[in-house]
Amino acid sequence: MAEIQTINLLIESLRKLPGVGVKSAERMAYQILDMKEEYVHQFISSLDGVINRIGKCPICGSYTEDNICPFCNDETREQNTIIVVSSYKDALAIEKLKSFRGKYHILNGSLSPTKGIGIKDINIDSLLKRVSSPEVKEVVLATNPTIDGETTALYISKLLENYPLVVTRLAYGLPMGGQLDYCDELTLSRALEGRLKMRKE
Amino acid sequence: MAEIQTINLLIESLRKLPGVGVKSAERMAYQILDMKEEYVHQFISSLDGVINRIGKCPICGSYTEDNICPFCNDETREQNTIIVVSSYKDALAIEKLKSFRGKYHILNGSLSPTKGIGIKDINIDSLLKRVSSPEVKEVVLATNPTIDGETTALYISKLLENYPLVVTRLAYGLPMGGQLDYCDELTLSRALEGRLKMRKE
Repeated sequence: MAEIQTINLLIESLRKLPGVGVKSAERMAYQILDMKEEYVHQFISSLDGVINRIGKCPICGSYTEDNICPFCNDETREQNTIIVVSSYKDALAIEKLKSFRGKYHILNGSLSPTKGIGIKDINIDSLLKRVSSPEVKEVVLATNPTIDGETTALYISKLLENYPLVVTRLAYGLPMGGQLDYCDELTLSRALEGRLKMRKE
Repeated sequence: MAEIQTINLLIESLRKLPGVGVKSAERMAYQILDMKEEYVHQFISSLDGVINRIGKCPICGSYTEDNICPFCNDETREQNTIIVVSSYKDALAIEKLKSFRGKYHILNGSLSPTKGIGIKDINIDSLLKRVSSPEVKEVVLATNPTIDGETTALYISKLLENYPLVVTRLAYGLPMGGQLDYCDELTLSRALEGRLKMRKE
């Protein structure tokens, strides 16, 4: 068959994106071939930016184009609360709420014995440095509600035991708008365990 | 919100791919950020190839990395039959059957008054040049079974009327493995119109 090497390479690159199978990658590649050169140039420049313009913030581990990331650079944010998340996109999800005005700390992963991700592979050391500052009063652990996420939260909360800090985690329970009978058992049992009083006494 | 320009640009580029919405584009962008530099370099190089290494074959209009495309360059292919398709990927779909050994002609589009695609915008002139050769005995019109595709086939068959050629088109009818009651009316009526005798008399 008349294979064109460049197209095959492009399909291979697209295949590695999440949720893209062979058929989609092919469709994407042929569309890219039909697109204006200008678009392809812009695509290349944004990928080039990933390599050459984006680094990690030495304070919180977030992606940044400057030395210090926009979160850490923002002096209007409160210094006394740090929310710990697994990834940059988790930070963005919280940021979208517009209700959190503290600082972020991005682990860039979760502890995972099965995937061989250990203590040194995620961004914990710099968190310990940050919480040593007397300004920090609360650390919110907002790792994912998965085994790896909970293991990570547990490990960090142990590390923080000797610091004069309040350590909290996000609440588990029923997702809003869901139906109780469609809820999985684990979530339901967590919701029951964490039940709250309706009336303050 | 702490926006990072490079990431936004990348999301914007990914959004233009077929079947990619905002959420998928974001997921893809964050995965690209987490990927090895080597992968991003390969991605860039394949996109760069689209601009700098791929051109169109002057004979058939297919994509090619050389002056003449692999289809036209292949001397084992039969010269007497040309199959006319709308796009390179249609040619690949036919090529996968491994039953067609003639040449291809790629229109790179279909006539479409609504989209403003006219006779000069698709690769018809070079087809007329090709069919002038006495070697060519048959032209198979394999445009899409859509209004634009059929308009294109009809127009080309008119153009070819005065050439000493057999002009054929792909058969319309029931797709194999489908169910008659799920078949759309147009397909079913085409299958009825084009009914074939079971026994040759």
